[in-house]
Amino acid sequence: MKKILIANRGEIALRIMRSAKEMGIKTVAVYSEADRASLHVLYADEAVCIGPAPSNQSYLIGQKIIEACKITGAEAIHPGYGFLSENAAFARLVKESGLILIGPTPEAMEIMGNKLSAKAAALKYQIPMVPGTEEAITDVEEAKKRALEVGFPILIKAAAGGGGKGMRVVEQPADFEEQMQLAVSEATSAFGDGSVFIERYVSSPRHIEIQVLGDTHGNIVHLFERECSIQRRHQKVIEEAPSSVLTAEIRARMGKCAVDVARSVNYVSAGTVEFILDENLEFFFLEMNTRLQVEHPVTEMITGLDLVKEQIKIARGEKLAYTQDELRISGHAMELRVYAEDPENNFLPDIGVLQTYKTPKGNGVRVDDGFEQGMEIPIYYDPMIAKLITYGKDREEAIERMIRAIDEYQITGIQTTLGFGKFVMEHEAFRSGNFDTHFVAKHFSAGKLKTHQDDEALLAALMGTVFYKKENSAALGVLQDKLDSTNNWRRNRLVK
Amino acid sequence: MKKILIANRGEIALRIMRSAKEMGIKTVAVYSEADRASLHVLYADEAVCIGPAPSNQSYLIGQKIIEACKITGAEAIHPGYGFLSENAAFARLVKESGLILIGPTPEAMEIMGNKLSAKAAALKYQIPMVPGTEEAITDVEEAKKRALEVGFPILIKAAAGGGGKGMRVVEQPADFEEQMQLAVSEATSAFGDGSVFIERYVSSPRHIEIQVLGDTHGNIVHLFERECSIQRRHQKVIEEAPSSVLTAEIRARMGKCAVDVARSVNYVSAGTVEFILDENLEFFFLEMNTRLQVEHPVTEMITGLDLVKEQIKIARGEKLAYTQDELRISGHAMELRVYAEDPENNFLPDIGVLQTYKTPKGNGVRVDDGFEQGMEIPIYYDPMIAKLITYGKDREEAIERMIRAIDEYQITGIQTTLGFGKFVMEHEAFRSGNFDTHFVAKHFSAGKLKTHQDDEALLAALMGTVFYKKENSAALGVLQDKLDSTNNWRRNRLVK
Repeated sequence: MKKILIANRGEIALRIMRSAKEMGIKTVAVYSEADRASLHVLYADEAVCIGPAPSNQSYLIGQKIIEACKITGAEAIHPGYGFLSENAAFARLVKESGLILIGPTPEAMEIMGNKLSAKAAALKYQIPMVPGTEEAITDVEEAKKRALEVGFPILIKAAAGGGGKGMRVVEQPADFEEQMQLAVSEATSAFGDGSVFIERYVSSPRHIEIQVLGDTHGNIVHLFERECSIQRRHQKVIEEAPSSVLTAEIRARMGKCAVDVARSVNYVSAGTVEFILDENLEFFFLEMNTRLQVEHPVTEMITGLDLVKEQIKIARGEKLAYTQDELRISGHAMELRVYAEDPENNFLPDIGVLQTYKTPKGNGVRVDDGFEQGMEIPIYYDPMIAKLITYGKDREEAIERMIRAIDEYQITGIQTTLGFGKFVMEHEAFRSGNFDTHFVAKHFSAGKLKTHQDDEALLAALMGTVFYKKENSAALGVLQDKLDSTNNWRRNRLVK
Repeated sequence: MKKILIANRGEIALRIMRSAKEMGIKTVAVYSEADRASLHVLYADEAVCIGPAPSNQSYLIGQKIIEACKITGAEAIHPGYGFLSENAAFARLVKESGLILIGPTPEAMEIMGNKLSAKAAALKYQIPMVPGTEEAITDVEEAKKRALEVGFPILIKAAAGGGGKGMRVVEQPADFEEQMQLAVSEATSAFGDGSVFIERYVSSPRHIEIQVLGDTHGNIVHLFERECSIQRRHQKVIEEAPSSVLTAEIRARMGKCAVDVARSVNYVSAGTVEFILDENLEFFFLEMNTRLQVEHPVTEMITGLDLVKEQIKIARGEKLAYTQDELRISGHAMELRVYAEDPENNFLPDIGVLQTYKTPKGNGVRVDDGFEQGMEIPIYYDPMIAKLITYGKDREEAIERMIRAIDEYQITGIQTTLGFGKFVMEHEAFRSGNFDTHFVAKHFSAGKLKTHQDDEALLAALMGTVFYKKENSAALGVLQDKLDSTNNWRRNRLVK
């Protein structure tokens, strides 16, 4: 494998190219017209334009990706995450075109891409499931009968939904029929499929997932868990590894379940088995993601493995170079997704130009990003600017390092989740490890972050103190010149 | 300990402040007038100007450092490396002023700062020494007698010298008297002390050093070795940990010797015991450096410990939180010192403005620096711009990652050691681990790096290929705009 095409953009395209370069493999970027000045285009050895934004005109058109491979002589495709990464039809097209997909088989994508077939596959290995209906239903009477068996509160969720869409919690039997009817009609209009699942509602859930790797020789291992319970709008924003709540015994059981789920579809490449963990530390299978995930770096930090390199080696037909027993957790890693969005305004996406953009450095800090100062965050794509990852000998050091790195990160011109990240890192519930997926709803609201004015006043006061105490105020002019550009930086530092 | 003053500048000042911040400790910077716009000044919570450049007007005046502590209320001082870091008189002044020095005792500095007393201390523990005179001598007859016993070739070195200054190799007995007389008179004029040592000349030496840590309760551990054999002008430029040549048995013996050397002066804080290793893997004590060293990050990467935090905890009177048996080497780390100097012109220091300055990122890459794009490398200080550190699961991955990171590092406006670093990383002797401190003399010379013109031609050819193959040449304009700024980047990438 001498040349691979990366069918993605932004930080993940760069991240994949870095590993390929380290392996001596040439890289081909594809880009939309909106991304022509992007870093991934410059970083690649070659680049091919595949059409205009939005994605359905370029990044989502499999045929254009295949053509870009033909033009450049790329032999394999890494799809990253999102876009075509879990598209079984694309995976088949790649194979039929005589190319290699650096990822799982179309069959595994297909089975795990559907909740019903995913559950059916997992049940073969007695994987624990949230108690509820085993098949999607539309019949209200049947549903209520099952709901009473499972016990209230219960959750009704659309079989075709995802990411929190089409979900309803029902607290008591009296409300069931009405909620069920609403759920079915909503699901029908939203997804064209009115069938729903009924299951036990876990009131204090943690989202914990297990990274797995499978080779083409039938070997499957797990790389321990990632805790992804800090979410806003049902989307992850802070992840860590290991989880502060798992015991070695639960970790081993959960790991074995994840390997079994992967085995149920003869899984090849990197994948993630997601579980829900309840307040009694009972876990239940949620779904399997058949791709590299956004949060994979925390697993890399604690295992010392480069997951993209592992994927490439697997795609080349190599055997995993280690057994489960040889894998160890070393230290603790934390990831904050730095999104262009405003935590003070319900995390609404923000767009604009990165007027100041300076990333933190130093021991245990990794920034995976796809932008430079002066670049624009385009409106067409996911508003993630960067992933800020810290690593320390234990959870406390990873958190302290994250706070230090957030303070050091300078972004102006756009609202970001940096200040929110600091809020979480300093929050007692997070520090103690006693939190669940409702963290944001329970603990965060607009106004919790200090306002700009407060910060400016505090900054002025601090600077006054500094200069009052100085023997020599030579630096005053310099600092004042820099005040504008560092305002956001200082602001993050001063957030209480 | 609530506030510490960092009596240093540049990358090491920033690096120390980062650890302090992670521990919740406030920081005070000191700076010369030439450094008023430096990053360490902006990064600190407070900053005090201590006079003009050069160093003997500011950073080297102990009394000014003490005054800066008094003004700001700092309770402790971290001296970094260089400047006052190994100055016993300063260490005494700090103590007498009621402040804490984050470093060893003045007594340990004094003993280890003098070759004779250092050797005498080490001999108490039967540490192996290069065969030769145990005391410095000036008498030519006595010296020749000893030289004949030791066997030729032998090395004459000034007792008061260091860093390769005042050294002479004598190949045969006939040349001895003349060389000895020259050495004595040179040493007298250079150091005011004509005494010299006579010792066996190791023709293929490797420079290997052991990191030690001692607490105030008498516990001393070692953190394994660093290989520092790649040097130019007798100064280290590439370091790695662990060494590719040490066996576990030699590592354990060398580690024990280092701990014993430290014990001979009741060593407290971080220190380094340097050894020379000959072609038969015999090692001999060279000297002990009583400070944090430039190359300490490679040890941090393979042990997971933050050495500055360890120093601060030790200065607070805490016990080491681990025993020797609990320490393990994990993975492999590589460091390249990115100096402002021209490898094509005998590594002469270069000065100027960092017209482009973009640092590499991603998995396993750490950059410790003190500059930003647009800043000037001042003429007054050491011309080190940055330390580029890579970490991988093994030596091969650390090297591949270093090459990738060098390719990604964009510096224009100034000559650097980046291209030289790539030359070393790609050299067969370095890759195989079969090298010694003569690597540069043996393998490198001007002309070994590709010239700018060659690179531009190659770049043009490559770009031509890219665009010839493209469906769409939308990126052409963008790339051409960027050609100037990326020239140096591309050049590094294309160095064969």
